[in-house]
Amino acid sequence: MAVNPKLRPGRDAHVDRPAPAIVLVEPQLGENIGAVARVMLNFGLTDLRLVAPRDGWPNEKAIAMASGAARVVEGAKLSRATAEALAGAQFVAAMTARPRESLTPVMTPEEAAREMHARTLRGEVCALMLGAERAGLSNEDVARADAIVSIPVNPAFASLNLAQAACVFAYEWAKAAGCAPPPSDLDTAPPATKAQFDGLIDHLFEELDRQKYFFPEEKRPIQQRKIRAALTRAGLTEGEVRTLRGVIKALTDRRPKD
Amino acid sequence: MAVNPKLRPGRDAHVDRPAPAIVLVEPQLGENIGAVARVMLNFGLTDLRLVAPRDGWPNEKAIAMASGAARVVEGAKLSRATAEALAGAQFVAAMTARPRESLTPVMTPEEAAREMHARTLRGEVCALMLGAERAGLSNEDVARADAIVSIPVNPAFASLNLAQAACVFAYEWAKAAGCAPPPSDLDTAPPATKAQFDGLIDHLFEELDRQKYFFPEEKRPIQQRKIRAALTRAGLTEGEVRTLRGVIKALTDRRPKD
Repeated sequence: MAVNPKLRPGRDAHVDRPAPAIVLVEPQLGENIGAVARVMLNFGLTDLRLVAPRDGWPNEKAIAMASGAARVVEGAKLSRATAEALAGAQFVAAMTARPRESLTPVMTPEEAAREMHARTLRGEVCALMLGAERAGLSNEDVARADAIVSIPVNPAFASLNLAQAACVFAYEWAKAAGCAPPPSDLDTAPPATKAQFDGLIDHLFEELDRQKYFFPEEKRPIQQRKIRAALTRAGLTEGEVRTLRGVIKALTDRRPKD
Repeated sequence: MAVNPKLRPGRDAHVDRPAPAIVLVEPQLGENIGAVARVMLNFGLTDLRLVAPRDGWPNEKAIAMASGAARVVEGAKLSRATAEALAGAQFVAAMTARPRESLTPVMTPEEAAREMHARTLRGEVCALMLGAERAGLSNEDVARADAIVSIPVNPAFASLNLAQAACVFAYEWAKAAGCAPPPSDLDTAPPATKAQFDGLIDHLFEELDRQKYFFPEEKRPIQQRKIRAALTRAGLTEGEVRTLRGVIKALTDRRPKD
């Protein structure tokens, strides 16, 4: 049965609800701007702001890399200075790779996303700032932030691509906004009742008895317990119990096949 | 003071400890393989396995995109079939973008990373499988997995770049492995004692009194409470209290400047 994913509960909540802005300060490569736009839209963010992009604006490479998220790139707001891009924001976090000599509090991406989600629900405007590919944010820009967001990278190889850094925050935003993965078919397939499961086990043990499997006789209880525990652990559905009974029937059918 | 980040507690734990393998099944673009390798190393993963990469192997573009993580690309293990790549693994998760008609349990990236971390600590070998850029994993490959990992993407724009999907898992792995961001300077800067803080407040109120700021007299208590509460909320350090006392002193210095 085809399910319209837009109608799944909790799945239509991604876009067009208030969400934080992503502010790229002096980004260098158009490709990275496009990749940031794409991953923003993947997680329901649409408000992209650019401060003095190195190669000017608009940028064809950004649109090409956005790959379906062109509307995020085309809607990007251009500013000359960080202060201008942040002017309307009420809570700003700065993503930085390396520790700063700064007295700004440090949050994990998860904490920052939760803080921004709570503030966004109260009607506040939040923004996440990311710096240029090489240099990152200036100390001056970091000092504008209410919080520093630090991703727990490998200190021996900490240089995270700009779009990957944006991905981590955008993903945590989607989590904080309560966007859960779709339910598994396993959640809706009825688990077998114990009676149904016991029917399978009895069927199996009868056939094994016919084959003299349980031997010597005193080992029968432990052999049976092991089989029962292993199959119990699979958490079979009603349908799977029927399937496995068919399997046993097929395996034990001694009638000649042509 | 320069701190060697390798010596920060909890920060030297990323690489060369057992960690899950990342298995790319029939990846198409060398650039994506390189970007996956880079983000793996960013989060301490190094075991990359490739099943039948479309453009052959080795691939120059993969090495170029790995940008410092060339050793992950160069150490990648090549297989012809998924079963071969997974042969030594004991717990396998399959990352899929779209819901599957499958009775494999679905986990969030966080749950999968925690499950794999617990298993890795017990000495088990774990792997995460990702499919080709367009098609994703085949239903046959998904059925090999102990769990499906589903990222909570925007259903209206669910096509996550391969390296971004790997990024989400690798980031959750680093979190599950207990890699915390470095401490903030704020954690080590001693907060002012209440006596030090009161010294600042008294100094400020004295100077404000001198300027006849508290007016009319009956409003004095509420005006003072507002100022005290606002400055208290900043959670000032000892050093910042000294700085602010210097600021007040400078502002109120009436001696002629030349």
